[in-house]
Amino acid sequence: MLGAALGMFVLGSGQGAQGQALPKTDSGIDIQKVTPEGKLPGKAVPYYIRNGEGERYLVGGLVADLVARGEDTQDLFETAVLTGGRDANLPLHTHARTHEALLVLDGEVELWLGKEHHLLIRGDFASIPEGTPHALKMRSHRTQLISWSTGKEMSPFYMALGQPYAGHVQPPEVNPELSGELLKKAEASADVRFERKAPGRSTPQRVSNGKLPDKKIPYVLASGEGERLVAGEQLFSFLGDQQTTGGRFLIVMTEGPAGEMIPAHFHEKHTETFFCLDGSMNMRVNGEQLTLAPGDFVHAPARTIHAYQLKSHYTRMVGLLTPGLFEPFFRTLGDPYAGYVYPQTPPPFRFDRVLSKLNELDLKLVGAPPTK
Amino acid sequence: MLGAALGMFVLGSGQGAQGQALPKTDSGIDIQKVTPEGKLPGKAVPYYIRNGEGERYLVGGLVADLVARGEDTQDLFETAVLTGGRDANLPLHTHARTHEALLVLDGEVELWLGKEHHLLIRGDFASIPEGTPHALKMRSHRTQLISWSTGKEMSPFYMALGQPYAGHVQPPEVNPELSGELLKKAEASADVRFERKAPGRSTPQRVSNGKLPDKKIPYVLASGEGERLVAGEQLFSFLGDQQTTGGRFLIVMTEGPAGEMIPAHFHEKHTETFFCLDGSMNMRVNGEQLTLAPGDFVHAPARTIHAYQLKSHYTRMVGLLTPGLFEPFFRTLGDPYAGYVYPQTPPPFRFDRVLSKLNELDLKLVGAPPTK
Repeated sequence: MLGAALGMFVLGSGQGAQGQALPKTDSGIDIQKVTPEGKLPGKAVPYYIRNGEGERYLVGGLVADLVARGEDTQDLFETAVLTGGRDANLPLHTHARTHEALLVLDGEVELWLGKEHHLLIRGDFASIPEGTPHALKMRSHRTQLISWSTGKEMSPFYMALGQPYAGHVQPPEVNPELSGELLKKAEASADVRFERKAPGRSTPQRVSNGKLPDKKIPYVLASGEGERLVAGEQLFSFLGDQQTTGGRFLIVMTEGPAGEMIPAHFHEKHTETFFCLDGSMNMRVNGEQLTLAPGDFVHAPARTIHAYQLKSHYTRMVGLLTPGLFEPFFRTLGDPYAGYVYPQTPPPFRFDRVLSKLNELDLKLVGAPPTK
Repeated sequence: MLGAALGMFVLGSGQGAQGQALPKTDSGIDIQKVTPEGKLPGKAVPYYIRNGEGERYLVGGLVADLVARGEDTQDLFETAVLTGGRDANLPLHTHARTHEALLVLDGEVELWLGKEHHLLIRGDFASIPEGTPHALKMRSHRTQLISWSTGKEMSPFYMALGQPYAGHVQPPEVNPELSGELLKKAEASADVRFERKAPGRSTPQRVSNGKLPDKKIPYVLASGEGERLVAGEQLFSFLGDQQTTGGRFLIVMTEGPAGEMIPAHFHEKHTETFFCLDGSMNMRVNGEQLTLAPGDFVHAPARTIHAYQLKSHYTRMVGLLTPGLFEPFFRTLGDPYAGYVYPQTPPPFRFDRVLSKLNELDLKLVGAPPTK
């Protein structure tokens, strides 16, 4: 039974209790125990990583902080946080099988995407389907972005191009160049083919697009844009949906004021991740109570009981959900929203609509549903 | 005696102990007691404000969150955090007596400064001496900046232009226009004269400047730039110094890895503030132990015993110090540094150089000095 194999995994210390007996869900699934350690779990269990504490490689001029590798997600997806200085870059390359998505966390990033050349800042997003040539160059002294990717062939990309690294920021005098030998090594072990030519010399255009396309093509979105839905006091934005990912994943941004813990629940068929961007939030992840600050990450695979609570006056988080089958949940709970900031006068919270469709949604509530 | 009048002031709850007996310093100054309340203190005492919890006004399309008013600082300075959406703006205006400085926290900001027209993003800085016409316009759906100003005539600017506001973000459908009547009202109560003409229609230029000027003139600095010094594992950057402010204040950015608490100390002649930008930090402020997350603010007037500790793998904070007489401390402790990120191999921490000049610096240590 899958549930019995799951274990709650906490990186770092002081954030969770150890080895406590944990409840079973209503459906009788065995729930996880805590296994505090200092490294990624190596199996697809729920886990929590504080900002900067993933497995790190120095890749040219940037630090790739792997917070989820294929072996931690049953090969469903991978996630890395890339931090570097001016001129750190990844040369022009294409993934044959991997769909990648990027969100800028700090600084300015130049992104060559297909035939376009963009300039992204904090909050700007890019979707890079398999087969799309792309390159990126960091332009600020502190530049940071998060990269999500499908499958298991991106971690080997960073491992081949880089070397294990204990630091959390790049060395001050790092050389951003990646040798031809390293590129070959990456091609041998990861889903990548380097173009071995410089990207175009055009002037990058600041991202201004606000709409998701209706099919799987490369695109960018300006910060705050995407398809927006309001559900009570929270604003959900699809940065990637089933149409743009071929159903493989969703990228959902959530923002709101301090509020209550949402109802604890689990999913049978999809995995979720949580990455805090602003403010602070609490999470329940099986038997654990966690606090997330900006840069903290939680992996909640299928059958993990979880819930979150926004704690600050402005909290923003972004999640990958994979596969993308949970999209109808957001459309059922939320209403299309023209605003770009959470509402000051929230509309009624229509969880009743979710309850009436519960058998169509990949959602199992743990405990009583909310009454308001 | 000034010291006896000081009181430790904490906004919000759960962050500090109440009314405990507190020690005297070596010099016999009476130290502060805690006065938890839900509003700004109204007198120049040490206090702590969590992200978003200052006194708030809705000013056109933006929320001005006053975290220090003249009455809270003995008229030394004021500080506001401005949050708004696309098109929120402050029309072209000039302060006759107030020197203002800005740091962008999120989004894109268009800044007309004298004859120049800049585009700023997170981490970019502007110094606006008295007498400089300037205007700003927010360009992102979520745009945020911090404004420091000398004296006591900026809070009345926001109070006159705006209205008290309970929210923490602007309403979704706010009108960013400020009526002529409101501009007149602000001119009557604050240090401001509006130009009543639109700023130039030039294309704003992305900030790239890296050098402080050697005199008090308007200037901008790109994120990470400024005059950089390294002291052990921490990187200090002057964004404003005595030359550029006529000695009125310093703006100092500090970044580093997780480390020890610095030696507790106080100053006789200058006030410091702490604003956390990234990561997390601990502070001792008189008898209080505080934790600062991004957006949290601490006011430590002269004679406040304080110390800080960077807690995350990458923590960055920015402070106003006023007047600017503490500049020699940083030059004594630190060495000029060409890098833009804290060092992976820190140079020796030369606190011995500070100790040898202690009688020239506005620094009183509390307890033993550090031994390394």
